[in-house]
Amino acid sequence: MSGYLKGRLRREDIIAAAMDVYREAGYHGSSLREIAKRANLTHAGLIYYFPSKEALLAAVLERRDAEDTEREKLDTTPPGVEVLHHFLAIVEHNTRNPGVVDMYTRLAAEAVAVDHPAHAYFERHYRMARDNAEATFRALSERGELRTGVDPAMAALTFIALWDGLQVQWLTNQAEVDMLGSIRTHLQNLLTVPLD
Amino acid sequence: MSGYLKGRLRREDIIAAAMDVYREAGYHGSSLREIAKRANLTHAGLIYYFPSKEALLAAVLERRDAEDTEREKLDTTPPGVEVLHHFLAIVEHNTRNPGVVDMYTRLAAEAVAVDHPAHAYFERHYRMARDNAEATFRALSERGELRTGVDPAMAALTFIALWDGLQVQWLTNQAEVDMLGSIRTHLQNLLTVPLD
Repeated sequence: MSGYLKGRLRREDIIAAAMDVYREAGYHGSSLREIAKRANLTHAGLIYYFPSKEALLAAVLERRDAEDTEREKLDTTPPGVEVLHHFLAIVEHNTRNPGVVDMYTRLAAEAVAVDHPAHAYFERHYRMARDNAEATFRALSERGELRTGVDPAMAALTFIALWDGLQVQWLTNQAEVDMLGSIRTHLQNLLTVPLD
Repeated sequence: MSGYLKGRLRREDIIAAAMDVYREAGYHGSSLREIAKRANLTHAGLIYYFPSKEALLAAVLERRDAEDTEREKLDTTPPGVEVLHHFLAIVEHNTRNPGVVDMYTRLAAEAVAVDHPAHAYFERHYRMARDNAEATFRALSERGELRTGVDPAMAALTFIALWDGLQVQWLTNQAEVDMLGSIRTHLQNLLTVPLD
């Protein structure tokens, strides 16, 4: 096995170990030492690949995006109502994985600081999320499936913001917040065709 | 001066000092030692009033709510379009105070953990925010000023979530996100009457 491939596999092991530890103990409850132990590495060995807790967290988030994209075929689904179904499937998936949502929400808030290691990730993440949603709403608009007066760019920004904001309220009190239902209702209100 | 009054004034001094320090250095860049110094107290003196960084932050947030409520007369304005104007005025105020928004966003994300010192605050905060917004949307609905099919409770949940989510995107990249414009557009889309 080449050194490059070995390094890549080692990174994968660390990311998988980090996901496990975050899921069990949350981000604040985790430590690089504990994650290194799970990945059968020394602390120094882990630091070689990920110099900080935040850098590792960013890698975990990139992985989460890649998994969402692959599971929901987001990169091959043409813009339209079908994409909205995939978005709702991700929300549904998230309701069964509060640990991952918690991790994402916490890091997004910390990473608003320009010097945070995950800041560039979140700038890119939000820009891509808005662009993808806008392309979908634009396609719906061109087919007359978007309500008159709804601007695709504004609808995209609003949709992503709503999604993020609901996650915080839902995490704070899961019993009081119907995350999936309210995103579904919001999307249906934007459309002239049935969502289901 | 009574001991009780002295203690209250001392708490006010600490909260004011904390607001200054958070505004300058952010929450992560702040320390209780620095805040104590600004309030002319020893570290132990401050700890007597606020046992942790998070407890002090929660007090600062309660203060922020009280200031918003008083400045915008939220507790005396009857439910209706006028309340939406006051909400927009708060958003406008926030665009000139990113430090306060940053602080709020960061703490909301951390405080989803049930054992976080600010968790009870945020549960209460979200419940009150939703209840107030719902009362407003319900009053609008009864006057025929809410679009047909818009449910007041769902509109309230969505509005608060949108507001929170926009703050994160806006803090991440202020140049790309029109926080005030998109909240205004969202509210206008819910109404049958002009917002302005």
